[in-house]
Amino acid sequence: MAGLAFQALPGFRDFSPGECAVRNYLFETWRSVARRFGFSEYETPILEDTALYLKKSGGELSSQLFRFEDQGGRDVTLRPEVTASLARLAAQHQRDFPKPLKWFEIGQCFRYEKPQKGRGREFHQFNVDILGEAGPVADAELISLAIETMLAFGFVEGDFVVRVSDREAWVAFARQHGVAEELIPDFLNVVDKIEREKPEALEAKLQSFGLTTGLVKGFIADPANASAAYNAIKDDLTARGLGAYLELDLSIVRGLAYYTGVVFEVFDSKKSMRAVAGGGRYDTLVSTISDGGVDLPATGFAMGDYVIRNLIEETTHANMQMQAWLQRQGAACDVYVVVADETKRGNALKLVTDLRRAGVSVDFPLIAGNVGKLFKRAEQSRARFALVVGNEYPQLKLKILSARSEESGDADSAVEWITGRLLEPDGPLLV
Amino acid sequence: MAGLAFQALPGFRDFSPGECAVRNYLFETWRSVARRFGFSEYETPILEDTALYLKKSGGELSSQLFRFEDQGGRDVTLRPEVTASLARLAAQHQRDFPKPLKWFEIGQCFRYEKPQKGRGREFHQFNVDILGEAGPVADAELISLAIETMLAFGFVEGDFVVRVSDREAWVAFARQHGVAEELIPDFLNVVDKIEREKPEALEAKLQSFGLTTGLVKGFIADPANASAAYNAIKDDLTARGLGAYLELDLSIVRGLAYYTGVVFEVFDSKKSMRAVAGGGRYDTLVSTISDGGVDLPATGFAMGDYVIRNLIEETTHANMQMQAWLQRQGAACDVYVVVADETKRGNALKLVTDLRRAGVSVDFPLIAGNVGKLFKRAEQSRARFALVVGNEYPQLKLKILSARSEESGDADSAVEWITGRLLEPDGPLLV
Repeated sequence: MAGLAFQALPGFRDFSPGECAVRNYLFETWRSVARRFGFSEYETPILEDTALYLKKSGGELSSQLFRFEDQGGRDVTLRPEVTASLARLAAQHQRDFPKPLKWFEIGQCFRYEKPQKGRGREFHQFNVDILGEAGPVADAELISLAIETMLAFGFVEGDFVVRVSDREAWVAFARQHGVAEELIPDFLNVVDKIEREKPEALEAKLQSFGLTTGLVKGFIADPANASAAYNAIKDDLTARGLGAYLELDLSIVRGLAYYTGVVFEVFDSKKSMRAVAGGGRYDTLVSTISDGGVDLPATGFAMGDYVIRNLIEETTHANMQMQAWLQRQGAACDVYVVVADETKRGNALKLVTDLRRAGVSVDFPLIAGNVGKLFKRAEQSRARFALVVGNEYPQLKLKILSARSEESGDADSAVEWITGRLLEPDGPLLV
Repeated sequence: MAGLAFQALPGFRDFSPGECAVRNYLFETWRSVARRFGFSEYETPILEDTALYLKKSGGELSSQLFRFEDQGGRDVTLRPEVTASLARLAAQHQRDFPKPLKWFEIGQCFRYEKPQKGRGREFHQFNVDILGEAGPVADAELISLAIETMLAFGFVEGDFVVRVSDREAWVAFARQHGVAEELIPDFLNVVDKIEREKPEALEAKLQSFGLTTGLVKGFIADPANASAAYNAIKDDLTARGLGAYLELDLSIVRGLAYYTGVVFEVFDSKKSMRAVAGGGRYDTLVSTISDGGVDLPATGFAMGDYVIRNLIEETTHANMQMQAWLQRQGAACDVYVVVADETKRGNALKLVTDLRRAGVSVDFPLIAGNVGKLFKRAEQSRARFALVVGNEYPQLKLKILSARSEESGDADSAVEWITGRLLEPDGPLLV
């Protein structure tokens, strides 16, 4: 990049048109699945009072924040996640809506991490939440949405699973084995890291709770320890025909302290074994954030744009679907107007205006060029049609670029002719 | 808001679903017009190196920035505008695209201003730019897009005008009247404030350049002073049938130092007389930002979300169009499934899943409720149809909520039946 004075900040992405189209593919797929499920879109601010995150976490703050003092002396933070803001928003507006609230957001979040493949300092997140329904039916609806999102991206059975666990099962286990109530959060943290901890360290930590590795791993291994909520979710998803995507995995507890019940992760089961999405129930957060003003049980999940994009690109059938979409969207226009005779430019401008106003995407050469070059430009634009405005005007020629065939028509009826023609297949017509 | 511990920061907006729908109306209209004009979408980071803005402005920085030091000791700023980033991005990627680049972005910007009606500390901006074409044809294409955006929002002739000026006309005027080359930027600043300055102060300032108010106002008043670029734009827009929206107004120079030629503002000519959008030519910015690495003439404009929204809401015909859109989009779903017999809930879940997968937006009660209440819920959701799954299953009833009529069908063919039905009008069918 010699001679270029500036770059984006480390970990921040420029979305040039090709990259922006990929981003839009993710956003449009997310949005369309959420709408099919009857979810409404909301959006919260990118900058929030730091106290909001302190409140959510119970006083501890991540070290990975973009946190600063604004000109008014406020301690503010670029949002690292959306759920704290959602809880604030829901507490404020819940009275205006029938329950449960089914809400989603697609927004950017910021964390000061070491940039690496699959992780930047900003990322987009699809957040989906149900507030106001405490039963496992809400978790089942969310998990179904997570599964249908994966299917909408072109993934198939075997590509991924949803691993479901329940913190309540672990709380019951801890109580049954005499773990003191105030130590249960610490115990859950140990379970959270069980796969990554060295055996001796794990054994030592569990012994501090009066437990053994064998006992804990035995609990994880026994499907009989599934909670009632898990079984209800399993039945619900089975009725929907989605049972095959579900897996009990009690080793999942998810790190964040605010989860209260069912937790789950969408897991890439073929490629990199990463979590593509994760979430769970957080029945006390809205009450915490609103200082007890509003009590609203809630459950939700988030899917980030980095991992899902990588997984799509690594998965042939999902990638083919995305590439086909990008190919269609990548066309700069439907119709490229070739101005073959500059004395007719004024007529061409009028045609361009009329066609655009009728909803057709139209481009044309801003300056004069020879006809061969203009046809090349039409092909570069990936337009379906080149509309030739030449000295035969008001007679026009419409070239079907893929079929290399052409038709004639009149300028007076051009809008009707071309909008109709765009609805038909590309093959040469019998004239 | 008693009992609610947190609010959004001053000047920052929460978009609850109703507000988010308005935002989406603006975004979708902007995006659709830009695509009809053959523009490609891009997106730049919300956080940038402060030096980028210093470079753009030639060393002076606005006092209204969200500027801070990040954890790596970098001097960073939440973007107050997008053009500096665009210049960086275009310099970096221009080689990959045929010229001119026709690019647009819809993104959020941040300025630490006093929050007031019509102005917050964050706002969304529609940025449209053409890079790589120096002639007035590019300005004409942009101004057409600005006009068509207003028409797409439902405004009509008489609601707004585009006031066009040309800095080059002023530069020629200044030279002709012996204003020293290095004082021309200061002179342009005086012209920029000519309508707001007190007569005596204005006269004193102009005298320091050896000019008089009469001379300057006389120049503004004489249409013969229109530049060649203005006349070319006028001819171009007249050919498109858009000439009536154009107005020569030499009093416009726009404050920012980086403009180099044609400048324009879309002006509300009926209500509050505000500028709804503004922009112009900035032929040297890409070269400045890339330290001379890439020379790319450019022209662009921006439209913010605050003023256009207020203007829509104040203009009956534009507002009716928006409200109709919001009414359609406000429906939580197309089909609300009424589970009239809880023993059939599993069948209902399967139907819901199949319909959603076929692209239909479907909601249903997560928990059991009496049928009357469920129909009320269906109406609240603004669904077109209520699909009743009761003890007659696999026979289903489809109630057309607006017409209060109903049809019967079979669960086996429900997807085909209902997707087909959604394409038909709502009136009761002859069965």
